[in-house]
Amino acid sequence: MSPLKIALDVMGGDHAPRVNIKGAVEAYKKWGYSIVLVGNRDQILRELERNKIKPKLFEIVHAEEVIDMHEHASTARRKKNSSMNVAFDLMREKKVDAVVSPGHTGAFMAGALFTVGRLPGVSRPALTASIPSLKGEAVMLDIGANVDCKPKHLVQFALMGDMYCRLVKGVEKPRVGLLSNGTESSKGNDVLRTTDQELKTKNLNYIGFVEPRDVFRNAVDVVVCDGFYGNLFLKTAESILSTLIFLFKKELKRSILSKLTFLLFMLSARKTLKMLRRRFDYAEHGAAPLLGINGLGFVCHGSSSAHAIRNALHMAALSAQSGFLRELNEEIARLGYEKGEEL
Amino acid sequence: MSPLKIALDVMGGDHAPRVNIKGAVEAYKKWGYSIVLVGNRDQILRELERNKIKPKLFEIVHAEEVIDMHEHASTARRKKNSSMNVAFDLMREKKVDAVVSPGHTGAFMAGALFTVGRLPGVSRPALTASIPSLKGEAVMLDIGANVDCKPKHLVQFALMGDMYCRLVKGVEKPRVGLLSNGTESSKGNDVLRTTDQELKTKNLNYIGFVEPRDVFRNAVDVVVCDGFYGNLFLKTAESILSTLIFLFKKELKRSILSKLTFLLFMLSARKTLKMLRRRFDYAEHGAAPLLGINGLGFVCHGSSSAHAIRNALHMAALSAQSGFLRELNEEIARLGYEKGEEL
Repeated sequence: MSPLKIALDVMGGDHAPRVNIKGAVEAYKKWGYSIVLVGNRDQILRELERNKIKPKLFEIVHAEEVIDMHEHASTARRKKNSSMNVAFDLMREKKVDAVVSPGHTGAFMAGALFTVGRLPGVSRPALTASIPSLKGEAVMLDIGANVDCKPKHLVQFALMGDMYCRLVKGVEKPRVGLLSNGTESSKGNDVLRTTDQELKTKNLNYIGFVEPRDVFRNAVDVVVCDGFYGNLFLKTAESILSTLIFLFKKELKRSILSKLTFLLFMLSARKTLKMLRRRFDYAEHGAAPLLGINGLGFVCHGSSSAHAIRNALHMAALSAQSGFLRELNEEIARLGYEKGEEL
Repeated sequence: MSPLKIALDVMGGDHAPRVNIKGAVEAYKKWGYSIVLVGNRDQILRELERNKIKPKLFEIVHAEEVIDMHEHASTARRKKNSSMNVAFDLMREKKVDAVVSPGHTGAFMAGALFTVGRLPGVSRPALTASIPSLKGEAVMLDIGANVDCKPKHLVQFALMGDMYCRLVKGVEKPRVGLLSNGTESSKGNDVLRTTDQELKTKNLNYIGFVEPRDVFRNAVDVVVCDGFYGNLFLKTAESILSTLIFLFKKELKRSILSKLTFLLFMLSARKTLKMLRRRFDYAEHGAAPLLGINGLGFVCHGSSSAHAIRNALHMAALSAQSGFLRELNEEIARLGYEKGEEL
């Protein structure tokens, strides 16, 4: 399979297909990637025309169905002809290197499991985000693919996060921590305390329980948590940021001194505000890779802009070029796991 | 029992006994409350002398032992002569109206259960915080007393939160929501989905799943969650706030325009920054009541300042005066529950 090809689920997300196709056009213009647009052919051709783009610059694969954002993952998975599942089929058939979708996270997980499947040794793939800290960033997983996790799942997330951090981010001995409500070993809940004991026996630079503040002050490289809390964590961060910006704006408009400050503040800090908002919105600055599947899958936020879709396609292409998946497979193989066995 | 008396565990917290006693002195000077100082008599007398306060202005009850902040709740509970447990004994014997402690949360929960016990119908008391929103605030429970919760516990938190919101905050028909990773009923984990179904059958203004942003934009009055997520939520909020303030300060120092802005910003927004930081730190702006015990118990943050202790004593006194506990008991009685039965 050459050259590199990325499949984009153009029917997924809140602004499909318009914004998704716009993002694909931007990515093509900037990097010349071979992008396969998967979705309703008529709608795709109409959007390409609107963007004054020759259809032959993209490969188009027609898909009859669409997965709705509010659908249950189990019904979504039965839609074999949905744009998302057709995109996964292309990856299973080795016709594309990666799949990018701004669609339903649960359906993405289900689609990946039922088409390309899991890597040997992995029982639950995990959605992985980069969280900004005071210097650099931390890798957090899972951020939404698995709401109910057992200790063995969290242990697998730790091992995959460690590999990702080493192979993709280039961190030598990533500090792996388990997100908890306190750092003492008596803290956490039953699942976390068992996981804590198991992680101590693994070949990891495991530093024990970490608290939210450790994530932001760069005291940990890989933050392990279940998908329920990981998702809440990101949503809390994002909503606090919006609230603060709102409150500041309100406060700064009060007096004349405040108004002047506000003006200068917006002039000089506008970029920071934008940057912060983007960094906390895991999809806006690219996409979240689903680690542990037998392929490269990236989920973007449902409300992704064209710019975010463009960045997600770029991230997918770079990951495909870097050979991360092959290295992850080799690393897992070195641990001695085989198909059917669990990490 | 009259007049009103509040017991303060002066040996609990990171800055005991000095800061706790300073807080008691401040509360006495401001409101003239009768405060019972529970702890090591010699140390208490020394601190009162340092503050140039006549010992006879306070009642002192000696307690031989101290519960360490890092102790396990189960060993802490066996320290019958600890300042915290002696304070609870005073409440059981109706010698004080309320107990305030900046000590160990787990030990506080255990101490309350083993001395004054639970209200009829309640199987798990819940620690309750007020979360600032764009207008007003939301009540969140549990924020740290129960890390592993079953649906029936979350249902009890919802009922108690509803009562608290009506009786103490004066909200007429509080909107009760269940904190989740999405508002669709397919979201949440197993425990939450069962709780969601059960809450629909209760006599509550139940609005279903809520997300973090709903908390901040005032779309919910009572936010129900287990103590693990509640605690992480607060810690996430607090640490994001600190990180943002740090990043802004750094960013604003970059250019000359930025420096000027920074100066004006600090002049005009200093108060807002302080206020925000305090509001997100549940203890700094008072204390968290432990709802569902047969008495009034308030936990402050371990690192509480004298000012926070003072505010906590004030909150305890107001709660005792308001007759909230009696009303909560009557309300539960109206529901028809008896000792041994569960809500």
